[in-house]
This record gives sequence, C-alpha cells and structure tokens, in this order.
Amino acid sequence: MIGQLPMAVPDPALPSRVRIHEVGPRDGLQNEKTIVPTEVKAEFIRRLAAAGLDTVEATSFVHPQWVPQLADAEQLLPMLEGVGARLPVLVPNRRGLDRALALGAREVAVFGSVTESFAKANLNRTVDESLEMFAPVVATAREAGLRVRGYLSMCFGDPWEGAVPIERTVRVARRLLDLGCDELSLGDTIGVATPGHVTALLAALNEAAVPTDRLAVHFHDTYGQALANTLAALRHGVSTVDASAGGLGGCPYAKSATGNLATEDLVWMLDGLGVTTGVDLGRLTATSVWMARQLGRPSPSRTVRALSHQEP
Amino acid sequence: MIGQLPMAVPDPALPSRVRIHEVGPRDGLQNEKTIVPTEVKAEFIRRLAAAGLDTVEATSFVHPQWVPQLADAEQLLPMLEGVGARLPVLVPNRRGLDRALALGAREVAVFGSVTESFAKANLNRTVDESLEMFAPVVATAREAGLRVRGYLSMCFGDPWEGAVPIERTVRVARRLLDLGCDELSLGDTIGVATPGHVTALLAALNEAAVPTDRLAVHFHDTYGQALANTLAALRHGVSTVDASAGGLGGCPYAKSATGNLATEDLVWMLDGLGVTTGVDLGRLTATSVWMARQLGRPSPSRTVRALSHQEP
Repeated sequence: MIGQLPMAVPDPALPSRVRIHEVGPRDGLQNEKTIVPTEVKAEFIRRLAAAGLDTVEATSFVHPQWVPQLADAEQLLPMLEGVGARLPVLVPNRRGLDRALALGAREVAVFGSVTESFAKANLNRTVDESLEMFAPVVATAREAGLRVRGYLSMCFGDPWEGAVPIERTVRVARRLLDLGCDELSLGDTIGVATPGHVTALLAALNEAAVPTDRLAVHFHDTYGQALANTLAALRHGVSTVDASAGGLGGCPYAKSATGNLATEDLVWMLDGLGVTTGVDLGRLTATSVWMARQLGRPSPSRTVRALSHQEP
Repeated sequence: MIGQLPMAVPDPALPSRVRIHEVGPRDGLQNEKTIVPTEVKAEFIRRLAAAGLDTVEATSFVHPQWVPQLADAEQLLPMLEGVGARLPVLVPNRRGLDRALALGAREVAVFGSVTESFAKANLNRTVDESLEMFAPVVATAREAGLRVRGYLSMCFGDPWEGAVPIERTVRVARRLLDLGCDELSLGDTIGVATPGHVTALLAALNEAAVPTDRLAVHFHDTYGQALANTLAALRHGVSTVDASAGGLGGCPYAKSATGNLATEDLVWMLDGLGVTTGVDLGRLTATSVWMARQLGRPSPSRTVRALSHQEP
C-alpha cells in the first residue's frame, strides 16, 4: 500500500533530473573503526550501482595511515570492473593521483578546505598551501583525460571558527575552478547551514562567474537541515547532490560532523517532487539494510528505518 | 564558538515571524507507555514557556481509557496558572469540551481525519460522522469565547489508503472552517509528504477560499521530510508551524507515524533564516535534555543531540 507513496507532485521551479553523487563507500565508510572486508565494499558498490546510482565514489588514495579503512583502495578498484557506474576516487596529492592512474581511474577528486583551521587539521597546510599542492594534481589528472572534482569543506561553518563568511568560500571555489576542476562540491561538513545561507552562497558564486551547472552540494544532517538545504539548492538550479546510502558517515576530523544526508531520504523527496534520478528506492533501501547488517548497527536514515519496518 | 551559528541569512520570500505551536506535552507525550508524573508535565510546560514558546498544547480531554498518559488533564491544568503562554487543549467531543470549560481552558482543538480509514480507526466514525460530532463542540466553544483549532490528520497519505487526493483534504478543511474553526492544522500524520505536494495542497486550499493565515502545518519526520516540507509551507506564506520539543512523539494509532518535527531542528532553521520566533534555542535544548532524562532515553532531535555533545 505504501508503494503508492510518496505521491509525485512535480514543482516546475526545480530541475527535472538530478544526478546523485553517492559517497557512502568513501565518505560513509572512512569513519568506521571496524575494518570492512574489501569484498563487502565491492559488493556494496555493485549493489548501489544496480539500484540505479550512476556515480559512486568508490574509495580514497590517501596514505593508509590516515584512513586505515580505505587502505585497500589498490585491491578494491580492480574488483569493480564491469560495474555500470562512474567510480570517482579521492586523491589527496600527487602520490595518490599516481596510484589512482596506475589502476585506471577515470575520475578523481581533491579535498580542499575553506577555513584555515580545518586546512591545518586535515591537511597540515594553510588554505593557500593546499591549493598549491592541488595545482599539479589537477593539471596532471586533466592532461590524462580525467574528470576532476574539487571538494570544498567547511563552506558554511567550522567547529573552530564558527560561521564562515561567504566571500571566503567564493574565493576558494574560484581558485579550484581556475586550477581546472570540472565540478565543485560545496560541503557543509558540520551541518550548520540553513536554506537562506545556501541560496546566498550560490548567488555569490554566480556573481563570481562560477556557473551553477558546475556545482554540487554536500550537506550533513547534524542539525537536521540537510534536506531543507538541498531543496534550497535545487530551487537555485543545482542538479548534482551528494548523499550517502543509509546516511553512513561523517568526518573523522570534526567530532560534531555526524550524519551525511541519507540517499534514501533524498530519493524519497525527489520521487515526491517528480524529479528523475534513475534510482530504485526499494533496491537502494535493501542495500542499506544489508550494509547495516555488515556494520552491526541500524541505519540512521529515517526513510530506511521507516521502509524496513512492518506497515500496519 | 558554535554560538555564532547558524549564521543568519534572511530570505525575503519568507514570513518575518513564525509562531511555533508546541505540541510536545500533548502529541509528544501521548504515546509514552510509562506514565509521566503530572508535576513533571507541568514543569515541562513551564520550561517550554520560559524558553519563549508562546503556544504550548498542554493536554487532551479524551477519555482516560483511550490515552492513559493524559488521564491527568484535570490535575494538570490548575498547576499551569500563571504560565505565560497560550495553553490549548485537545477535546475529542462534547464531554471533553465540558471538562475543559470547567477548568477555564481558553483554547481548544478538535482532531479530525481526512481519510475514512483513520476516522474509523481513531474515532470509530466515518469522516462525515466525525464532522457532525465536532459541529456542536466547535459551536459551543465559540459561544464561550474560546479559540478553536481543527486538526486534519492524514492530509497527504494514510497507512491503509496510500496517497490521499488533495481534493479530499480540501473538502474536510473547508468543512472544519465552515463549522467555525479559527485555525486548521494540516497534519502529515505518517510523514510521507514532500515539498511539491505541500505547495499544491496549500494552493488548492487557497482556491477553495481557505486563507493561508488560517493554516498551520504539522509535519512528521518519519521519512526525514518534515523540515523541507516546512520550508515549502513557509515559502507559500504559512506562518504557524507545529513542532514537538526534542522530537517527542508520534501517533498511537498508526505504527509508522514516528517522529514529530523537533522544535529545535525547526528553530535552528528559522534562526538561520532570520525569522523571529521568540524562542531561545539554548533554553529549549536544555529543556529537551531534561525531559529526555525524565523519560530515560535520548532525544531523537538531531539539533538536541548535536548541541548537547561536546564540541571539539
């Protein structure tokens, strides 16, 4: 009976199609203390692709010491041959890019920070030093024909610095675009953004000649705002949204950064809005329920919890 | 440091002020199996009012056998004298109204259903029979000078019937207004609504001569949609929003109806949008943390959980 729901009532002010950039296997798992077997990760990615997600961020080529959970990137990627989805990988620096290139990666992402505090904590560099580090990474990736995504973390607030001025985010966005990034993902790493702030940042980026079709949004649900912020971004014309299956994940370097936007909660909204995603919510939910069993605890996604319960 | 957050970035398309209709003590607690002492309920309401909530739905005059948790309505109301807030109470029928009037209640609410299935399950009547039952209740309350709110449950979907046609909700809304209700609260009892559906319903109500300033919205977070739906309603001009402190509550007659919109998650968004509510988020969060201790389990509100954790 619940299958008829949500009722699709399109909103002409929104994009007709949204590409979901699934980050569960990378951003979602990187925080997990118990090491997930490589075969389970591969199966997770296969199931996500089979549920209709056409972009699944697969892993990260960071130094294994930093993120032990993703130390198996070299083993994982070859297991994903034939998966029918784009499989971008994170590369923190030139060494990471070389490892990714050696394995035939077709898309990479660099992970920058808008704030000095987080650049220092996460990259042990100033913001400008990190951009200098990214420059040859992006240039080499582009020369090799790869698509490059630039993550901007702490776009709205920072646990050490509080509210982040919009012009700081615009400056870093402009720099990453000038370095050659194809797409920018605006991250609300600690989940403090609200819809008016989102709209104001997107408008300021447009004024700085950053086109909306080069932008993705990446919201965390720490304060329950992720979906409302996504709605504001869609209304501004953004049509690429990051989300994590089952709401897995957070950020290992910022305690309060719990809870990526759950892909299922996003798909429920987009299905209701008549926005095409290509994702089958039932198969996706089944995947998150399966993954939650692997991890030994329930999914934090409200939609996963509701759909996996008995209906009256 | 987090005190600077959220950054207030007003959106001129939204109302400048929102009245929060706090339902925690009634809708939030009615589901609790362990009976909460009357003095704790009174203290909860006092603390909510002291946090700046100007409307706190205090209890329900249903038959004690239906909702044992609220069987102490007669004892509770006299304990609230001097509380500086409007204190509406639910009255299911004429007998409930008489009990409320005897105690000097100044505002009452009737609780209707849009769907036949829920009317049968909750009221053991058809929709039309329930409206006939409400007619003398609303008329008598109005004659006594009381303000009357009409709840409409299952406005968007129903666990037995699936998606609810918009015209069904419009019809019941129009009837309740014609009976004399001052305000209607549109309830998404099982949390299935999405923003386009919300906007379409509000527009259809306007077409049926139901003015937006007579409407409140009441969303549940079962599928994580409550705040996005609220944003859509605010954008349509709605300026009364129901919420439950700490996200307490659900609906005892519909298993899947878990999770009222948490008042704290709402206030975080409204603070960020520069919308005045009069609510002090810190005091409200402290109240929900206190209440969670009384109930012996953590608040489901993401904002309460984030604000009550240590920051890095």
